[in-house]
Amino acid sequence: MAFGFELLKKDPHSRARVGVIYTPHGQIPTPVFAPVGTQATVKAVSPQELQELGTSLILANTYHLYLRPGPDAIADLGGLHSFMGWDGPIMTDSGGFQVFSLAHLRAVDMTGVTFRSHLDGSEHLFTPEKVIEIQEKLGADIILCLDECPEPLDYDYNVQALERTHHWAERCQAAHTRRDQALRPVSEAASGQALFGIVQGGAFADLRRKSAEFIASLDFPGYAIGGLSVGEPKELMHEMLEVTVPLLPEDKPRHLLGIGSPEDLFECVARGIDIFDCVLPTRIARNGALFIRTGRLNIRNARYANDAAPIEEGCDCYACRHFSRAYLRHLIMAKEILGLRVATLHNLHFMLNLMRKIREAILAGTFSALRKEFLANYEIVPHEARQRNRETWLKSLKR
Amino acid sequence: MAFGFELLKKDPHSRARVGVIYTPHGQIPTPVFAPVGTQATVKAVSPQELQELGTSLILANTYHLYLRPGPDAIADLGGLHSFMGWDGPIMTDSGGFQVFSLAHLRAVDMTGVTFRSHLDGSEHLFTPEKVIEIQEKLGADIILCLDECPEPLDYDYNVQALERTHHWAERCQAAHTRRDQALRPVSEAASGQALFGIVQGGAFADLRRKSAEFIASLDFPGYAIGGLSVGEPKELMHEMLEVTVPLLPEDKPRHLLGIGSPEDLFECVARGIDIFDCVLPTRIARNGALFIRTGRLNIRNARYANDAAPIEEGCDCYACRHFSRAYLRHLIMAKEILGLRVATLHNLHFMLNLMRKIREAILAGTFSALRKEFLANYEIVPHEARQRNRETWLKSLKR
Repeated sequence: MAFGFELLKKDPHSRARVGVIYTPHGQIPTPVFAPVGTQATVKAVSPQELQELGTSLILANTYHLYLRPGPDAIADLGGLHSFMGWDGPIMTDSGGFQVFSLAHLRAVDMTGVTFRSHLDGSEHLFTPEKVIEIQEKLGADIILCLDECPEPLDYDYNVQALERTHHWAERCQAAHTRRDQALRPVSEAASGQALFGIVQGGAFADLRRKSAEFIASLDFPGYAIGGLSVGEPKELMHEMLEVTVPLLPEDKPRHLLGIGSPEDLFECVARGIDIFDCVLPTRIARNGALFIRTGRLNIRNARYANDAAPIEEGCDCYACRHFSRAYLRHLIMAKEILGLRVATLHNLHFMLNLMRKIREAILAGTFSALRKEFLANYEIVPHEARQRNRETWLKSLKR
Repeated sequence: MAFGFELLKKDPHSRARVGVIYTPHGQIPTPVFAPVGTQATVKAVSPQELQELGTSLILANTYHLYLRPGPDAIADLGGLHSFMGWDGPIMTDSGGFQVFSLAHLRAVDMTGVTFRSHLDGSEHLFTPEKVIEIQEKLGADIILCLDECPEPLDYDYNVQALERTHHWAERCQAAHTRRDQALRPVSEAASGQALFGIVQGGAFADLRRKSAEFIASLDFPGYAIGGLSVGEPKELMHEMLEVTVPLLPEDKPRHLLGIGSPEDLFECVARGIDIFDCVLPTRIARNGALFIRTGRLNIRNARYANDAAPIEEGCDCYACRHFSRAYLRHLIMAKEILGLRVATLHNLHFMLNLMRKIREAILAGTFSALRKEFLANYEIVPHEARQRNRETWLKSLKR
């Protein structure tokens, strides 16, 4: 099956919707949460466990895989699916975000981005054509255009960055040779690949509108929204979604890049997002922070040292079926790998299960009620940057 | 079922034998290799994976669990089996070896050993009674007497140490209240616990003989041989086994503490050993060293960067069924947890599978042939200390 998107149900009270994305490696029920497998592995879990968790999409990072082991090595081994032993849908980002955050940025102009590797300091150039070539070699089902992810509050800089992002989107589209839309026999289809455009525009409604209109005009099979996971207040992210999403075609999937937390799933699904990816559940798990119905449980807290209860009563993940909070606390305190594993399994189970409930609620017409009930009981741990009010935040980021 | 040992078959050409140990948590076919779960987890693998690997016994470390999370915490949570979610047989060591190697030793006399924790520097005293009390709280199926594990080449010191080890053995036996031998209903039997004596004596045949005779005279349900995993030449270890084993009762299981490598399994089974435990397979796995039929494969070697083959053709472990050498190399180089997991699974599978073949060969009367064939094809990686010849080694260790 080649790439496609089918809208199954729209929530009458919000922009929430249920659909299904068809890819050469299987179907993705949406809205979907994609665990992140930065280096061709979702940290601490196996492909078999991902499957058992009900994962239908994972995201891998082009920047990291380009540097190590390299796109040619992965292509030689049959592409990313074969390389990492994951037969389900995969998407790769373009590397843009990582180049602007992890690498040592050297220069950016209309040609592309020059940066130094965070691994060995070697210098590299990412052009739109180059990142498409790399992503074609990696062979994910969904790939992304090169974009610039600038500091969101500098208007003039965002105007320039947006110009580059839009120019690069056209060049990415022109460079993309692994076609994605036409139906074809299954064996061929496995090489099909959909290229999504990315909307940017920082924290500015007019730029977001301009970007959404331009990128939508290029007629991509799907759209991503970038630049909204950089510590800005949640209300601002919501505003930006409210101006962006209505300008994107309804019959194409929409991906909010690098988001989110449990509360984000509700707030952004309600604003019309279909695809999420985020390292949060796996990253905080390795630090002992576990999602439960009422918020986050920090298993390192001494109060759990003798607690025979599972992380959460009623949870049917591997961790909760087999281990006590006391044992998991011991594993995390003793820096044991099994602790990282089962904490990760729990958090991924929580996110995937929550998204399953969201889909069911949208289909049943009860999404608003579920959203209200969840948010009433879930204590949001504010991001440090989000704890400050918007003005302080705006001020702190001004150049 | 309470504790017991049944001898099923003796090899006519060596001291190798096949038997079965009965414990409250199931049967252990011998000879057996026990993976080490120092901190109540075999590093990187789950209880479910241990079971799938065919593990029939694991060893946990009293010293580590005493310090963290503490024997009372584990007892409150139902004992070690319940705590770590492993329902099969477990043995604990007495902590003696760790106190003499890991901790900061403060003093040793007939009373016991005073040491400082490697975690926080706190001072503790291990007496025979204390380590039995701790091990009773942990609740393993097989526990060990407190012993002193001295530098093996100082004769006078070994004479003194042996006096303490023997004195402590008697006190451990007297202190042990969780009975192990009488048959009882299954529900009660789950608290049954066998205490093994430990033979010491350093590198001296006369001391080893003396120790074996004395410890055997105490009539333990099983016997461990200690002090032979400290870097001495293999031939010396073999000599010590040859003088010790014939003095131990044939109808009781014999455990060689802290050994072994694949080649050790053959050499020491041939000398009458029934139980092995060793961190080697799991420890070297995390460093990328993998057991294969012909020796050790170092997956970090650049030659495997594009190698699509599994670690070993024909191996049916999870790693070999799903991943290429190239992918495993990538995971190990990128310090990914999945790399540690699958390398560990492979090495444990190798050891457990090898031991299964050894048992089958003894039963079939083909052990000598298997031993010869295995050792002819397997390139032994000499321990640094073993690369030196015996004289250099003797000299280097002399006080």
